[in-house]
Amino acid sequence: MPGRNFLFIPGPTNVPQRVRNAFALEQEDMRAVDFPKFTLPLFEDLKTIFQTRTGRVFIFPSSGTGGWEAAVSNTLSPGDKVLMSHFGHFSWLWVDLCQRHNLDVQALEVDWGEGVPVDKYAEILKADRKKEIKAVFVCQNETATGVTSDVAAVRKALDMANHPALLFVDGVSSVASIDFRMDEWGVDLCVSGSQKGFMLPTGLGIVCVSQKALEARKGAKLPRTYFSFDDMMTANDNGFFPYTPNTLFLRALRESVNMLLEEGLENVFARHKRMATAVRKAVAAWGLKLVAKSEKWYSDTVSAIYTPDGIDGNEVARHAYKFYDLALSVSLGKIAGKAFRIGHLGDLNELMILTPIAGAEMAMKDKGVKVELGSGVAAAQEYLRSTAKQVRGN
Amino acid sequence: MPGRNFLFIPGPTNVPQRVRNAFALEQEDMRAVDFPKFTLPLFEDLKTIFQTRTGRVFIFPSSGTGGWEAAVSNTLSPGDKVLMSHFGHFSWLWVDLCQRHNLDVQALEVDWGEGVPVDKYAEILKADRKKEIKAVFVCQNETATGVTSDVAAVRKALDMANHPALLFVDGVSSVASIDFRMDEWGVDLCVSGSQKGFMLPTGLGIVCVSQKALEARKGAKLPRTYFSFDDMMTANDNGFFPYTPNTLFLRALRESVNMLLEEGLENVFARHKRMATAVRKAVAAWGLKLVAKSEKWYSDTVSAIYTPDGIDGNEVARHAYKFYDLALSVSLGKIAGKAFRIGHLGDLNELMILTPIAGAEMAMKDKGVKVELGSGVAAAQEYLRSTAKQVRGN
Amino acid sequence: MPGRNFLFIPGPTNVPQRVRNAFALEQEDMRAVDFPKFTLPLFEDLKTIFQTRTGRVFIFPSSGTGGWEAAVSNTLSPGDKVLMSHFGHFSWLWVDLCQRHNLDVQALEVDWGEGVPVDKYAEILKADRKKEIKAVFVCQNETATGVTSDVAAVRKALDMANHPALLFVDGVSSVASIDFRMDEWGVDLCVSGSQKGFMLPTGLGIVCVSQKALEARKGAKLPRTYFSFDDMMTANDNGFFPYTPNTLFLRALRESVNMLLEEGLENVFARHKRMATAVRKAVAAWGLKLVAKSEKWYSDTVSAIYTPDGIDGNEVARHAYKFYDLALSVSLGKIAGKAFRIGHLGDLNELMILTPIAGAEMAMKDKGVKVELGSGVAAAQEYLRSTAKQVRGN
Amino acid sequence: MPGRNFLFIPGPTNVPQRVRNAFALEQEDMRAVDFPKFTLPLFEDLKTIFQTRTGRVFIFPSSGTGGWEAAVSNTLSPGDKVLMSHFGHFSWLWVDLCQRHNLDVQALEVDWGEGVPVDKYAEILKADRKKEIKAVFVCQNETATGVTSDVAAVRKALDMANHPALLFVDGVSSVASIDFRMDEWGVDLCVSGSQKGFMLPTGLGIVCVSQKALEARKGAKLPRTYFSFDDMMTANDNGFFPYTPNTLFLRALRESVNMLLEEGLENVFARHKRMATAVRKAVAAWGLKLVAKSEKWYSDTVSAIYTPDGIDGNEVARHAYKFYDLALSVSLGKIAGKAFRIGHLGDLNELMILTPIAGAEMAMKDKGVKVELGSGVAAAQEYLRSTAKQVRGN
Repeated sequence: MPGRNFLFIPGPTNVPQRVRNAFALEQEDMRAVDFPKFTLPLFEDLKTIFQTRTGRVFIFPSSGTGGWEAAVSNTLSPGDKVLMSHFGHFSWLWVDLCQRHNLDVQALEVDWGEGVPVDKYAEILKADRKKEIKAVFVCQNETATGVTSDVAAVRKALDMANHPALLFVDGVSSVASIDFRMDEWGVDLCVSGSQKGFMLPTGLGIVCVSQKALEARKGAKLPRTYFSFDDMMTANDNGFFPYTPNTLFLRALRESVNMLLEEGLENVFARHKRMATAVRKAVAAWGLKLVAKSEKWYSDTVSAIYTPDGIDGNEVARHAYKFYDLALSVSLGKIAGKAFRIGHLGDLNELMILTPIAGAEMAMKDKGVKVELGSGVAAAQEYLRSTAKQVRGN
Repeated sequence: MPGRNFLFIPGPTNVPQRVRNAFALEQEDMRAVDFPKFTLPLFEDLKTIFQTRTGRVFIFPSSGTGGWEAAVSNTLSPGDKVLMSHFGHFSWLWVDLCQRHNLDVQALEVDWGEGVPVDKYAEILKADRKKEIKAVFVCQNETATGVTSDVAAVRKALDMANHPALLFVDGVSSVASIDFRMDEWGVDLCVSGSQKGFMLPTGLGIVCVSQKALEARKGAKLPRTYFSFDDMMTANDNGFFPYTPNTLFLRALRESVNMLLEEGLENVFARHKRMATAVRKAVAAWGLKLVAKSEKWYSDTVSAIYTPDGIDGNEVARHAYKFYDLALSVSLGKIAGKAFRIGHLGDLNELMILTPIAGAEMAMKDKGVKVELGSGVAAAQEYLRSTAKQVRGN
Repeated sequence: MPGRNFLFIPGPTNVPQRVRNAFALEQEDMRAVDFPKFTLPLFEDLKTIFQTRTGRVFIFPSSGTGGWEAAVSNTLSPGDKVLMSHFGHFSWLWVDLCQRHNLDVQALEVDWGEGVPVDKYAEILKADRKKEIKAVFVCQNETATGVTSDVAAVRKALDMANHPALLFVDGVSSVASIDFRMDEWGVDLCVSGSQKGFMLPTGLGIVCVSQKALEARKGAKLPRTYFSFDDMMTANDNGFFPYTPNTLFLRALRESVNMLLEEGLENVFARHKRMATAVRKAVAAWGLKLVAKSEKWYSDTVSAIYTPDGIDGNEVARHAYKFYDLALSVSLGKIAGKAFRIGHLGDLNELMILTPIAGAEMAMKDKGVKVELGSGVAAAQEYLRSTAKQVRGN
Repeated sequence: MPGRNFLFIPGPTNVPQRVRNAFALEQEDMRAVDFPKFTLPLFEDLKTIFQTRTGRVFIFPSSGTGGWEAAVSNTLSPGDKVLMSHFGHFSWLWVDLCQRHNLDVQALEVDWGEGVPVDKYAEILKADRKKEIKAVFVCQNETATGVTSDVAAVRKALDMANHPALLFVDGVSSVASIDFRMDEWGVDLCVSGSQKGFMLPTGLGIVCVSQKALEARKGAKLPRTYFSFDDMMTANDNGFFPYTPNTLFLRALRESVNMLLEEGLENVFARHKRMATAVRKAVAAWGLKLVAKSEKWYSDTVSAIYTPDGIDGNEVARHAYKFYDLALSVSLGKIAGKAFRIGHLGDLNELMILTPIAGAEMAMKDKGVKVELGSGVAAAQEYLRSTAKQVRGN
């Protein structure tokens, strides 16, 4: 089958060649005397990505789901009260994980299309006079709906209530793409994964933990070995790992972090916003609606787009894959079939982002959506060209 | 600089991953006892690509230019009369090469935008009672103008004149993309290169030679060593090479030939025509003109597109590169600055071919062309979707 | 620094180029409609590697340690009695993991250099009239000491005692290298990892589970999400995964399984035994002793070699790395400093296995061991040449 | 077939991973505006490798044979007198090439095992009162026999005779491995190839030319297009090429030149001498003889080793390949069957060079040579360890 596949799902994302080259390396001894020379600076630079000076970063050979489990099992105990909210497939999955780990979960149900209900969080925290809530959870970017929540506002709610609960953030599809500030926002634990803004294949759960959350591990009673912070800290302090790490991923992560720092975090965030805006211009030109209910919820890494009544969004996605070798994402859970999703994160530039727009137009038209071919492309083109800067040859 | 570069020049073309993987192999001994088991079937399968049973294929570690030199130096002698025509940069370069090798070149000058003047060839051949013309040259696809010539018609002209001259074809940007029939058309020597329809990097001159042309080498007096057919034949007969071959390219060529044969040559040609048609639909929607003067000259591997008066086509190409990381081709020679070119050959599918169209629109608008954004894309989309077939997941 | 690094640790092992090429692929949509066409046969073929027809294979994005955790957390409950033994760093780590998961561990301490004490297991099982022991653990290959245990004999002990306990095997450094028979030996759960006999980088915990062990999950009360068999089964049944899988590893695993099946499991095992024998011949020629106390314990995937008194084996290993770019393994735990290890598993042939022998000789001599240079190499050469078969060019 | 192939022929050589990664890049536009930013410094750094300030380097997409043709066709005319000598397959091939290009070749026949007969050259040059000899040829390293000639001495002979002839050097298997000084030795033209000291696959003829030799091109009457210095100079001056270059090779060459310069040319030469010495120690321990007759002729990049009477050296090489996956080189021409060759150039370290020694021992013993297994290895080990330096972990 000639031609390349176009991948525009919200993770895994396109892996740039510089990073891919790391996977061409040969295996190495993870106990070599010079291995710490490589790992210690990497841990340090990862802190920059999370915008923390006092936190500590853990790298688990797992997916983001493993990162969630690490977060919970290292800091909490069965019966601990936690405040959560769910408004999409992935925020719901974290709730499920907490329940399975026997936490006492208060999970606020929120309309899909909105994010963390900060006001309700504030009320509940204020009402929690005995400070029984041990942790408050925020899914910064709900990948199922393309909704971004306001982490800083939750911090403010905690502070207003003078509440000591830990602040946990699911940053799997936001870190390294959307602004995330560990220290400034007083986040205690943030979970990320390799296959999103880090532009790597799936394979690493990257977790950033505050000193306060690290302290909490001492009383935490959930069993843990694979995801143990303690084992990791003992080994990591010397630049090693408690069990065989995936050195290829570490080498690739090194390159990815280099790329992010070379571009500059602010530029990375601005670029993602620009790519996302181009997609939203196209959606508007099509006369379609985002699942995200209003601008404040718009995600800069993924857009979930409602298809018109009578048109199955998942059929659109499947058709794009079958006929145009374009991987869009299907819609899940409550909105399954009502929408499709375009991932727009990671290693992207102008012409890349036009591709899923053009392909979605064709697939939608094929499936009966009354969309004018080229209309979304034109809207995105106009936005992109009017905001373009020279990237080469100067 | 984030995001990928988009390469839409008429060679080198995009190299598919299957072929790229061959370049990850380690070096091997080109005199190993089992090397012929690899090379002999490759030579055989290459004949299928050229549609020949009686011809013989040579693989030189060179570019297509080296292939031209091999063609001329192995079959002709200083002072030999040859009939050529030039109507673009590359047909002119072959004329130049022949002149430097002291051939007696009759080079017909043809308007750029047209191809080989078959009628004039017929006249001249008919008039050549003494059969002094030793070889007749056809550039099947002039890369500079996007013009395809009619090789079969030249064969007919030779036959009508009952003329024994050798028929030489420059198939560098046509073989494995546009129908080429060595045996049926009575071609004596066809030159191709790795970086076009073969979907490899530059590095191989691939030359197919008829028995008649092989016979001609016995009297040919131009000096040759690197490009010697004789040396090659002696070694190739046993599956080896007279000097160190580039085994990585041979392994990659093996994979590329596999891909071409798996797709089927007819399908390869049809796909190229479809991609080319999509581009031509876009050009028409833009209200612009191809350099190729009429449909009979249209090339299925490259389109040269005139920009409106006052707009430098090369500036459009350079701007696309600088601002949108899109490599279009500049115009050369007589039409330098008056046009830009889109290469549409090799490993391509629907969404890939929309990219240079979308990017060219943006670059043209930026440089002052009154083009409606999305218009070319829409025309190409409509054509592509109305002719699409399922490619995946069935 | 010119030249390659030589990796002869007992995992990660050398990854063959065919497998490495899979890591050059681009990311893909793990929810694509044709993804199951790829995954379902892979799950099936993995059963062949474990020599099971009735068992079920799970693939976790983790290391082998994660595989252990999956094994325990899916089948057992806090307070469950389990019978284990430890005789090396890795058998001890599994004990530790079980204890952390609040199992009631009876861990027999065995001299390092020996393996599972089958007779004691038999006694204990016989004495366990109430059948309180829920699971019996066997580390088939203790990587720290180079000791292989007799899994079939433990099965027999269970049968003799007519004991229903589950039989768990740590096959991390044995599966796909040393004979392992899931069905014939009545194993209920076997844990393996990608970075050993599977010739992949670290990144997958591969777990094979009997129907009996699967049944046990229904009453198992340890919390689990990331390593949940249930979630995996639901998704795997359709060819998908409950969270983002590492598709590159799956593609690489496909290639590795292809290679194992092409070679034939019996040939794979025989080759490992031959490589191991060559190393043991060298050790004997050096006049040194293996940590493994007698032939019945000899491991075909790793040899731990005592250095003479007064010579720190770990210094030998570090010196080899620093001066000869050779990664040998240090000794750990009780024998730390008293030995060094040579890993001899995965993608190996004759000349590869001579390298760590030659390098160890140089490093030993440099560090004061009275070893005759070339002596171990000669012994290994003689054994290898007298048992060599033609591998190429026939 | 498990395990890697070991390649120890005198080119192509092992390509280090850093260089191999360049071949994983995508194709690029060789006419891009920023292409010269890449090429111009590369041309400059190549001059450092040839140790020239005033010379000029050409990069042809060809093998070294193409470099020879470029050398001759750009500087000489039919009938020109040239002084050459042949003492091996490759020095003879250059003679053959010159004869085919109708030069008037005076080719001194020298015993295989010796190199350029400097005294005879001196005599002939002195006797050439009319200065009719246009060029004097030196094969710095005869790959067939493992013989290195004294280029500086030939320069001296020219100077003593006050002779204006051009000095041509075949440096294919010496440049970037054995000391070569373009300016200091007054060399006018040196030909090298990518697949030897440059540690690349075959694919580039790299030619360094003095101003005097460049001047000579103006009167040179041999036909040339593909290998034309003039065309190259015009395009190269602006950082471009007259026909499509192989950009992957250029990117790889960039990395290889980086590696050579990082290591330092003197260290590169010293390392090659050390590896060669280790091989020669082994040959002495075996009681065998080099084809090179005495120390002054010893090559630091390849050793040709006579097998005892009655033992076919080529059978030894073939056997090593078939049974031990080891590519040694066969002997060619006059000594065909009497010897085998070990290539020891490019990316090598201690344990790499022990491999062909160990493998050759096994193959020789298998084929009936009375060699003590391990004897050559031991001699090489002792030499290497007594001269080893720390390379890692400091």
